[in-house]
Amino acid sequence: MDEKRSRRGFLRNGAALATGLTVGAVRPAEAQTAAAEPHAKDIKELIAYGDRSRFVTAIRVPVSERMSPDMFGLTFHVLTPLQDSVGIITPSSLFYTATHRGAFVPDIDPSEHRLMIHGMVDRPLTFTMDELKRLPYITRVFFVECAGNRAQARHKTVQETHGLTSCAEWVGVPLSLLLKEAGVQNGASWIVAEGAEEVKGGSSLPIAKAMDDCLVAYAMNGEPLRPQQGFPLRLIVPGFEGIHQIKYLRRIKLVDRYYMTYDDYGHINADPKAAALALQIGPKSVITYPSAGQQLSGPGFYEISGLAWSGGGAIRKVEVSTDGGQHWQDAELRSPAYRMAHTRFGAHWKWDGKECVLMSRCTDELGTVQPTRAEVGKFWNDPPDRPRVRGNDNTVQPWKVMSDGSVLNGLA
Amino acid sequence: MDEKRSRRGFLRNGAALATGLTVGAVRPAEAQTAAAEPHAKDIKELIAYGDRSRFVTAIRVPVSERMSPDMFGLTFHVLTPLQDSVGIITPSSLFYTATHRGAFVPDIDPSEHRLMIHGMVDRPLTFTMDELKRLPYITRVFFVECAGNRAQARHKTVQETHGLTSCAEWVGVPLSLLLKEAGVQNGASWIVAEGAEEVKGGSSLPIAKAMDDCLVAYAMNGEPLRPQQGFPLRLIVPGFEGIHQIKYLRRIKLVDRYYMTYDDYGHINADPKAAALALQIGPKSVITYPSAGQQLSGPGFYEISGLAWSGGGAIRKVEVSTDGGQHWQDAELRSPAYRMAHTRFGAHWKWDGKECVLMSRCTDELGTVQPTRAEVGKFWNDPPDRPRVRGNDNTVQPWKVMSDGSVLNGLA
Repeated sequence: MDEKRSRRGFLRNGAALATGLTVGAVRPAEAQTAAAEPHAKDIKELIAYGDRSRFVTAIRVPVSERMSPDMFGLTFHVLTPLQDSVGIITPSSLFYTATHRGAFVPDIDPSEHRLMIHGMVDRPLTFTMDELKRLPYITRVFFVECAGNRAQARHKTVQETHGLTSCAEWVGVPLSLLLKEAGVQNGASWIVAEGAEEVKGGSSLPIAKAMDDCLVAYAMNGEPLRPQQGFPLRLIVPGFEGIHQIKYLRRIKLVDRYYMTYDDYGHINADPKAAALALQIGPKSVITYPSAGQQLSGPGFYEISGLAWSGGGAIRKVEVSTDGGQHWQDAELRSPAYRMAHTRFGAHWKWDGKECVLMSRCTDELGTVQPTRAEVGKFWNDPPDRPRVRGNDNTVQPWKVMSDGSVLNGLA
Repeated sequence: MDEKRSRRGFLRNGAALATGLTVGAVRPAEAQTAAAEPHAKDIKELIAYGDRSRFVTAIRVPVSERMSPDMFGLTFHVLTPLQDSVGIITPSSLFYTATHRGAFVPDIDPSEHRLMIHGMVDRPLTFTMDELKRLPYITRVFFVECAGNRAQARHKTVQETHGLTSCAEWVGVPLSLLLKEAGVQNGASWIVAEGAEEVKGGSSLPIAKAMDDCLVAYAMNGEPLRPQQGFPLRLIVPGFEGIHQIKYLRRIKLVDRYYMTYDDYGHINADPKAAALALQIGPKSVITYPSAGQQLSGPGFYEISGLAWSGGGAIRKVEVSTDGGQHWQDAELRSPAYRMAHTRFGAHWKWDGKECVLMSRCTDELGTVQPTRAEVGKFWNDPPDRPRVRGNDNTVQPWKVMSDGSVLNGLA
């Protein structure tokens, strides 16, 4: 494997192509001419930590308007290439990342990292990473999604419309175990969790959620957390907005009220229950194939494929429409349906070659059905021709299939 | 991120340290002095395809006696660092690899790859990758294990004793769907599957298994298969020996008898049912922490952690002993227990600082219990002091904890 074939070389090519990337496989020109025989040195590297094929070039791309031109702003959003997704696990190297708390990825030595639990507890506690890893742990598959993951008419691909969500296997200590060890005092009704970013943003969480299914996670997809995902420690709050999945977790304070912290946009509500419910994602689904920017080769059999997820628990049902929502058929769940995890669905489709609109909608275990944008607009009394796009947008995404096999964003 | 901090730089360090590697975290000397601020160029690369932390250095190591000195022999076995494993997914970069069919990793252009299904079928079929990807698919978590994954007294770590097994989320087309499409003729009782390696090894599988749960897989852990795992296509035969998980799958022939192919060691049996049963793995388990080569910091609470798996289906129970097998306690399953998948177990343990022997044993959904080496020896009438190590060794692995907290291979 010579320099031209190295992964970094391919990534440079990939990055250069990023703005024009709409379909999965982009093959660098030199791929066809590269030598077939790797050198012994490179075999050593491939033994240590393997790499992907030179023919596999899916990459993340930044959200341009949420990143300053020099890439050193506080805000930094990078989108997962969902058009290339298969199964339900997002590869760690392609997991979306989003922050308002500093574009620098903190470079944390895990041997020096500490987690403090304090505030309204009987016994304030501080843990080293080694101490946390000696405790009982669990492993679960959960999605994470940014509240700003909303489809807009100008978006050209599913990576742009829905790429701020990803899904991984997380391993960590149940937060409830740590809180019980600290001894939660009467009256402690919220927690504030804080990471070690440049900006010390925190997020308030109701104590009921903290004592339920949250994880103090140190690993994802079989490895320690990736730096962009909070290495060495991240709070995983299943089904809640991404902003609560605090990276570089270093402090949890138990308090008796909702804290208005930096970056805690729009969650304040006089009713604590309403505030808590506002934090939850979905139900939401999107077809990843065929999706905008992809090309059908002609009429015939296709397998529609997509992802569904909900902060309300497991996905119970996914329906697909191939006529813009006039008729719906049940899709099949092609993966196990875990609570608060991406769930893969599929549906057979025989395309007659005519223009049509593909849609998916899901129902979660609470019975909540994903709405269309028109339904949401009607609920809020928006003008019918101009339904507003709101935060936590979980509306149905239409893809328009043209008679030449090209696929466009149906919102455009 | 300068040259010194690049991943390849670390891997070179890691590879150099490989022979001495016994515990997870090996930190290169320069790690502490590296600059904290990445360059814009490297941020671009990290956007495209992220990398692990410079503090995370787990690597695969080769099985020395199964690889020729120049690394270009036909045989090539690389071990997963199970001592660093968490959860149940093995990262694709750390997935074990083993071959007797050529050390070169075939460099296959997926647009030129074909799968042929022929022999005793009504309609011989050839598929391109694009055609396969248009078909219905499923996604499942399955382990893969080399039949040669056996603990020996000379092994110093769990990577050496058990590192020829890994577990991933696989996505692919059910083989049964393809076979039905081809039309299996009466009398077709076996299939022979062949990959595109230098040596065209095949493997015989009973038709009952082929029509049951096998996958023609094109993706693992959310990405196309890694080259070392058979890119672009691999036959996944859940619970069967690794040799049957044919990489670079290009041909499946339906035949009326068991074929004696290259590399099909020891499976021939006059009774087809007995031959088929001999292909199945487990039940098997191993404690990954604490395991040989690791160091306990002193008496106190520890969480014993390990993996269990079986070709016979889901793991139903795991037991742990801390006194060399005199007493057993039930461990907790810390992950979902999928059929033919690694299952993570854990058990609380308070170490009193005295020398002791840790063991685990599992029971699968068929009720089969993992045996000790002594039990297997007794069954085969081995001399009690010299029980033989057999193929498909699934015996209990003892770890000896010394009073200074060091952990040794209990077989030594």
